Amino acid sequence: MSSDLLPGIVTDTIASLSRLPGIGPRSAQRLTYFLLQAPEHLPRELGDLLMRLQTETELCRICCNICDTQPCSLCSSRDRDRSVICVVEEPQIVSVIDRMGQFNGLYHVLHGTLSPLDGRGPEDIRLKELWRRLDVGGEAEIREVIVATSPDLPGQATAQWIADELRHHPIKVSQLARGLAAGSDLEYADDVSFRFALEGRRVL
Amino acid sequence: MSSDLLPGIVTDTIASLSRLPGIGPRSAQRLTYFLLQAPEHLPRELGDLLMRLQTETELCRICCNICDTQPCSLCSSRDRDRSVICVVEEPQIVSVIDRMGQFNGLYHVLHGTLSPLDGRGPEDIRLKELWRRLDVGGEAEIREVIVATSPDLPGQATAQWIADELRHHPIKVSQLARGLAAGSDLEYADDVSFRFALEGRRVL
Repeated sequence: MSSDLLPGIVTDTIASLSRLPGIGPRSAQRLTYFLLQAPEHLPRELGDLLMRLQTETELCRICCNICDTQPCSLCSSRDRDRSVICVVEEPQIVSVIDRMGQFNGLYHVLHGTLSPLDGRGPEDIRLKELWRRLDVGGEAEIREVIVATSPDLPGQATAQWIADELRHHPIKVSQLARGLAAGSDLEYADDVSFRFALEGRRVL
Repeated sequence: MSSDLLPGIVTDTIASLSRLPGIGPRSAQRLTYFLLQAPEHLPRELGDLLMRLQTETELCRICCNICDTQPCSLCSSRDRDRSVICVVEEPQIVSVIDRMGQFNGLYHVLHGTLSPLDGRGPEDIRLKELWRRLDVGGEAEIREVIVATSPDLPGQATAQWIADELRHHPIKVSQLARGLAAGSDLEYADDVSFRFALEGRRVL
């Protein structure tokens, strides 16, 4: 009896919201009732945005970041250092790094990592597009590739693969340093970070 | 520089999702990137549902619950006991109570509570519609109104107001019992529940 109680569009909205990451059936129900009772423009605006989200965005044909112009604003910017490419796993990392204002080069978004255990090989991520950028060379020769993948196994495997592939290229391949986080207390450091910090120790 | 990085529709979607209850800027960003990279039908289906959510639902002209037929499936059902009305604060409570399968009467949704401190008076919630149901009387006379508002101050004020208004009516007004939750440990009972349990104690 209970399922007949609600209009189909209400149960469909709850089911659809439940499919989003981090939103369980309870939150989906709460969000749906919020939207049902919110000022009418709120669900309509959000609905309209979601309908257009994928059709009005694409991947930059150079860096594979999400964009709405070809090439994207970063790849076409004259203010960036065009000799360094920072390679990241996912598009959201570009925003994270750029917000810090420390890096002024270009990016390349892989859309994933290599993971032999999960059957993800080089052709499953945007490596072909990276090799193409490095071979063509464009107006300014690329000198360095900074691999900013995550410090986990698939991230490390991906960084190593890129370094191996470019071994006979005149391009420097680097990786972000690992160690103790700035301002952190040694007492609470995890053992992996500590091992990285010890291995990478410097003479003072 | 950072805000130029993302297409307008991406920042607009993040901003719109941030307006939902329980979703902060970080979750909104995570959800947006999930939807950007999900199979195309997912954001489109959800967007379409949200666009239609309010236009394809309305309030039942009898019980004020959210519905898509007039009157709603509950008010038009022949299997329900038409002599008892359970009065609730919000539409979602109807689903909660009906799922338990203990109550087979009709409902009335107030869409809020009385709260003099917040300036919410009787004309701000669906009380007029409740009085109309009780006066008309329909095919089966209503014998009892069960006020199932929350056990907090506004809920209690609302229940008391309804009881006072119906004092000279031949209609019984009742409230859900308060006390100790079934299976709960007395050691961890809160003092308000304990006071209710003590006041409502029964002779064995």
